[in-house]
Amino acid sequence: MAVTAEEILATYDQLAEIEAEFDDVETETIRHQYNLSKDLYVKRAQIVSKIEHFWPLVFEQAPMDIDEFIQPSDSQIILGALKSIDVKRFEIDTPVEGGDPRSVSIRFEFDDNEHFEDKVIEKKFWWRHGKDGFVGYVSEPVDIKWKAGKDLTNGLLSLAKAAWEEEKAAPKKEGKEKKELTPKQKELKEKLEAEATGAESFFCFFGFIGERVSAEENIEALKKEAEDRKKRQAGEKVEDEDEEMNEDDEDWEDEEDLDIFPQGDTVAMAIADDLWPNALKYFSKCLSSKS
Amino acid sequence: MAVTAEEILATYDQLAEIEAEFDDVETETIRHQYNLSKDLYVKRAQIVSKIEHFWPLVFEQAPMDIDEFIQPSDSQIILGALKSIDVKRFEIDTPVEGGDPRSVSIRFEFDDNEHFEDKVIEKKFWWRHGKDGFVGYVSEPVDIKWKAGKDLTNGLLSLAKAAWEEEKAAPKKEGKEKKELTPKQKELKEKLEAEATGAESFFCFFGFIGERVSAEENIEALKKEAEDRKKRQAGEKVEDEDEEMNEDDEDWEDEEDLDIFPQGDTVAMAIADDLWPNALKYFSKCLSSKS
Repeated sequence: MAVTAEEILATYDQLAEIEAEFDDVETETIRHQYNLSKDLYVKRAQIVSKIEHFWPLVFEQAPMDIDEFIQPSDSQIILGALKSIDVKRFEIDTPVEGGDPRSVSIRFEFDDNEHFEDKVIEKKFWWRHGKDGFVGYVSEPVDIKWKAGKDLTNGLLSLAKAAWEEEKAAPKKEGKEKKELTPKQKELKEKLEAEATGAESFFCFFGFIGERVSAEENIEALKKEAEDRKKRQAGEKVEDEDEEMNEDDEDWEDEEDLDIFPQGDTVAMAIADDLWPNALKYFSKCLSSKS
Repeated sequence: MAVTAEEILATYDQLAEIEAEFDDVETETIRHQYNLSKDLYVKRAQIVSKIEHFWPLVFEQAPMDIDEFIQPSDSQIILGALKSIDVKRFEIDTPVEGGDPRSVSIRFEFDDNEHFEDKVIEKKFWWRHGKDGFVGYVSEPVDIKWKAGKDLTNGLLSLAKAAWEEEKAAPKKEGKEKKELTPKQKELKEKLEAEATGAESFFCFFGFIGERVSAEENIEALKKEAEDRKKRQAGEKVEDEDEEMNEDDEDWEDEEDLDIFPQGDTVAMAIADDLWPNALKYFSKCLSSKS
């Protein structure tokens, strides 16, 4: 049967609409599950606090998506000093405009250890929609107060944080004007090019940024998506966004080049959606592998 | 602080109880999500039926857990003849005693092709609890009507099916009596030892059996778990099941040796929980990788 170009476009519009409906179901499911299990997580935290080394043992059994980034020296800190992990869906707990139940904060609590001063290291991951069609986690670098000579990231994490502060403070470029790297960003890029071995410390995870999508851009993108959706439902034509996407590409060619832990979103997801909810299963796995 | 043996046992009882509560939440969440998305899947099937090669293109982008088992010759059939995939949670649709919302049937629809006669190949995965503590998917081999000289599994699938029929028909052994392999099982074991290359056809997936847990054993195990749970909640002692587990070990040493696709449960999960719900995402990934 012959299919016309209009029919194909109509089919793709239907696909976009149904994808949006699936997304609504997922959002509602995450919210439902979070509310059903919230009290259970509190109860679990009370019980596992009585089990020595519970969280280090869970981490020892971490799935590949996490484990592949843990170097032997990281493992030593985790085994020796990790006290607890906590995951919160902070945009369910405290709703904000454009907030999403997928947004998570991951909080690590540590005992005294010889590497850093921090008792708590917490990192937030915002689930955002970009104007270029991006949907996913973005974050901000969180620095660690390393003890002298004990920085496992060899200065990378603090530099990533400093470069981020400079980037935020730099004047915004408009439209087609090309963004330039700040001095700290240049320094970071050079350091990464010179020293990156692919076996960086897991603690670089706290430096992950991901795509630059501000809370404001997220709100705008969500509005645009909602408008497009209404148009499609009414059978109206939705403008092609190719032009806008090309404009955005005028940013630095590769934000990833400046990220000290480009897979931070994957690791955050693996912690929030697997390690954290399934901690008891990983703990039993650990017990049975040792008996 | 000194912890007594009783306190440790009490903590482990609490862990078992909270694990059961988490499991209840998961069961309820799967049910909730399935009911919310059921109509959407029907709508999606209507739309994607208008897109040529939709499912082959989704399969081309399949996640590693599935992709690693697809040989080039499998890929040819999938690209050329796969018409659609359908996943149903048949124990939600038709509740039975001991049924679980995790149980799935996976249905592949094919066009005419030079390898087999079947237009539909469907395999069921039952989520069952064994008396030895096992919880997971079990299945039964599903044979394929290969055309002469075109069997991609080189006889393995049909033999696995025949061995399974013999196993079911064989008289049940009781208690400590050791089970013996049937003639077809012996033949299968020898064929696997002689010919297995680790690069078997993906179609061996239809031969996966997994642990031997009947519907009756599942019901018994669930009853026992519910009783244990009540006892724990009432602060009573729950008997140790080690003895029973040892008894069960008197089965063939390794059912896995007789399974032509031991990772069938992982693949079923990857299809039901990832490829199927995220098919639109995999399809867009495919489009963008080609543009």
